[in-house]
Amino acid sequence: MDWDSHRYLECFFAVPMMGTVLQTVNIRLSPEQVLYTLNHASPTVLLVNADFLPMLGMIKSQLTSGRKFVLITDAAAAREDRRSFDAEYEELLAAHGPEYEFPDFDENVRATTFYTTGTTGLPKGVYFSHRQLVLHSLAVLAGLAMPAQQGRFHRDDVYMPITPMFHVHAWGNPYIATLMGVKQVYPGRYTPEMLLALKQSEGASFSHCVPTILQMILNHPAAKDVDLRGWKIVIGGSALPIGLAKQALERGIDVFSGYGLSETCPALSLAQVKTRHLAAGADEEVARRVKAGLPVPLVDLRVVDGQMRDVPHDGKTTGEVVARAPWLTRGYLWDPRASESLWAGGYLHTGDIANIDPDGYLQITDRLKDVIKTGGEWISSIELEDILSRHPGVAEVAVIGVKDEKWGERPLALIVPTTGQSGAVAPAVLRDHVLGYVKRGIISKYAVPEQIIFVEALDKTSVGKLDKKLMREKYGAADAGTVA
Amino acid sequence: MDWDSHRYLECFFAVPMMGTVLQTVNIRLSPEQVLYTLNHASPTVLLVNADFLPMLGMIKSQLTSGRKFVLITDAAAAREDRRSFDAEYEELLAAHGPEYEFPDFDENVRATTFYTTGTTGLPKGVYFSHRQLVLHSLAVLAGLAMPAQQGRFHRDDVYMPITPMFHVHAWGNPYIATLMGVKQVYPGRYTPEMLLALKQSEGASFSHCVPTILQMILNHPAAKDVDLRGWKIVIGGSALPIGLAKQALERGIDVFSGYGLSETCPALSLAQVKTRHLAAGADEEVARRVKAGLPVPLVDLRVVDGQMRDVPHDGKTTGEVVARAPWLTRGYLWDPRASESLWAGGYLHTGDIANIDPDGYLQITDRLKDVIKTGGEWISSIELEDILSRHPGVAEVAVIGVKDEKWGERPLALIVPTTGQSGAVAPAVLRDHVLGYVKRGIISKYAVPEQIIFVEALDKTSVGKLDKKLMREKYGAADAGTVA
Repeated sequence: MDWDSHRYLECFFAVPMMGTVLQTVNIRLSPEQVLYTLNHASPTVLLVNADFLPMLGMIKSQLTSGRKFVLITDAAAAREDRRSFDAEYEELLAAHGPEYEFPDFDENVRATTFYTTGTTGLPKGVYFSHRQLVLHSLAVLAGLAMPAQQGRFHRDDVYMPITPMFHVHAWGNPYIATLMGVKQVYPGRYTPEMLLALKQSEGASFSHCVPTILQMILNHPAAKDVDLRGWKIVIGGSALPIGLAKQALERGIDVFSGYGLSETCPALSLAQVKTRHLAAGADEEVARRVKAGLPVPLVDLRVVDGQMRDVPHDGKTTGEVVARAPWLTRGYLWDPRASESLWAGGYLHTGDIANIDPDGYLQITDRLKDVIKTGGEWISSIELEDILSRHPGVAEVAVIGVKDEKWGERPLALIVPTTGQSGAVAPAVLRDHVLGYVKRGIISKYAVPEQIIFVEALDKTSVGKLDKKLMREKYGAADAGTVA
Repeated sequence: MDWDSHRYLECFFAVPMMGTVLQTVNIRLSPEQVLYTLNHASPTVLLVNADFLPMLGMIKSQLTSGRKFVLITDAAAAREDRRSFDAEYEELLAAHGPEYEFPDFDENVRATTFYTTGTTGLPKGVYFSHRQLVLHSLAVLAGLAMPAQQGRFHRDDVYMPITPMFHVHAWGNPYIATLMGVKQVYPGRYTPEMLLALKQSEGASFSHCVPTILQMILNHPAAKDVDLRGWKIVIGGSALPIGLAKQALERGIDVFSGYGLSETCPALSLAQVKTRHLAAGADEEVARRVKAGLPVPLVDLRVVDGQMRDVPHDGKTTGEVVARAPWLTRGYLWDPRASESLWAGGYLHTGDIANIDPDGYLQITDRLKDVIKTGGEWISSIELEDILSRHPGVAEVAVIGVKDEKWGERPLALIVPTTGQSGAVAPAVLRDHVLGYVKRGIISKYAVPEQIIFVEALDKTSVGKLDKKLMREKYGAADAGTVA
């Protein structure tokens, strides 16, 4: 339980290399959920940053796991808490020599485990072996390093994660950055001020984050005074809205998407722009940056219909994304039923709906469970969100399906208006904005939402993703802001 | 048995993927040696380019292997020979559909085999599995792609091998180029004219070859009319002389060394120059380009003394290079005794003598068997060759040890003089040249060769390496050109 730190990086290597399993704990979950994941995976040693002592205090008596507790702290004050721990991290290191003979063992030994932060049911454990981490590191390094121009991670870069290390190995990049031998900057607890300061002082040039964090960085007043040019940022976790991509590109950030899941280690694809598309003009270029992209080496990535048949690669026909790669989780920890359904038909089912264009770029159009089914047609909530996000009066948007007697479901848009522009985002104005895209043939008329609700903030999960399950519960019976 | 071709590339993939073993035949060996390797490995199907029909004719009756023969040809005239074959390559392909269901099998199944072209004893077979080829491809791709500036292979490059595909998988690059998805140019039988023409017409930008071939290309009259700038060429097989490196750099070729053996798939290290050394000035930069370089990912590369202890990484102390990596041959085919000695102490013994500098760059100073042992000291034949090659009157040079009553061994230099400059390379002139390096403390006085012999050409092996075994036989008792 720690923020992103050099000690976490040490544990990324040392714990698995000792032949033990590294469980990365999602410290943004509720104490009850953290307790659940700890009791489910049953670690024998807990390493806890002093910042999480209050959380540990709330769950410690109910822990069925954890025989040893190691305190992590830089603060002298926290040394008081040292007494209730078996050891303190730096003291442990200082008490032992710099040499350690790591044991040799089978490459299929489990190396890491952590819990998915889905919006349904209890957290589910996924797990990865040494072999899987090595292959993921090599193949994703290859995918990141080989572009000729855009989106290229190289040996002179300075790496700074902005996706927590507890979340899917910080997308595998600490392993890749170490393999490359680049300078690495671990920012601790994320605040836009700290991230911007580190970008400036340490010259961070390669990072990765969810769209929400990028938006927070760009919107922060301090961002005006920091030169953001040349900062390569891979966006994942949820779709990169075109509006946000353009805003980042205007500041000189080399932003592009990646795609993967907790279940997939995570990388499956990267949306780097080929040189010939870089020359194709801004709109074409941005359109590629926001796609899920091209599969990284060794990934067998398919979009299939209900009978596991490949859909045409026409950039239009959608189906579910399924994948094979040597680094996908073999299942959910101690949950054979969910594991079987994850791997139905010999491919890992992502639960994402997508198309593939003739150039091979994957584009996610929705989560299987977030698709809005109206009058026998499917509306992509992500496409509608993307269109709404392009209106200057819209800061953030989520579109969910709500029950409708006549059509089955209809889209409902939840909007966080841009500060100081509330007048510009009357429902009728937004409806006209969407109708403009209908007229240009980009979306169907039946996708125009009748219901628009203005909110102060969108509901999000512990890792900053839109929590559409909660939104459907809260707004499913809503009848506000109808403009039709 | 083919020149480098698109069909050879097809076989690189198709033959192993069918679950069978691809034996790449060194067509530069003598017919007797080719016969030996074929009877030793016992392939069931032989694919033979029409150019090698004379060779096949000489050995066919003695072949104990080969139940099917497939002809490869583009020439209509060669169709006459079709009758003595079971099939013709393109006819075979045309007679079958474009789809083929490759079987699934264990990754440790053998994929390729070929024979080393050492200068002692019979050719020895080495072999590599699917797993080894995949890991070699990924790790070497990573090594080639991740530099920030110098020596970087990327997706916009055009690949053209100038190391035969029968020789250690063309150093693995056809697999890497295919994985990257770059344009590939296969030049058939190598001639400097054809290579230069393809460089120009197809825009070849990434190649690899032995020093001799690079020298041939640069010396060819047609080279004057071709823009060679930006052509990345990895040099291996033998040491890249500083003089040749400078000559290539002057033409704008981005030349640097790689290091490996037939036994190692082959890549172990790459001598790309780090950005901070690029800024260090020309001499420092060239000195790095000609070293064996930094280990590629996953390679455990050591320089050890006779007791397998690591020598200091001071850029001076030498020892034998030993290595571990997931892609080294497990042994010599059907030769357990040689296999055991290859892997003595759990590391593959390269038979090369080297040092490692404080930056981690490996530098080969000699072959274990080519070191000149004089008066209890070791002289590096390669270092002496390098110094002699810097004299403008020297086109090519080889230094060997010859028996000496007083000192045990003394160095003998074999020199091919530069055309039209024979006057400039009198033995005394060369001796003064070498003494200049003695005065500057670069080599010891006892390394100055008393004997210098001028020759029209140096003896070379089938793959263009110096054949020092033959030279020692021919000149071991020589007494010519003594200048002392």
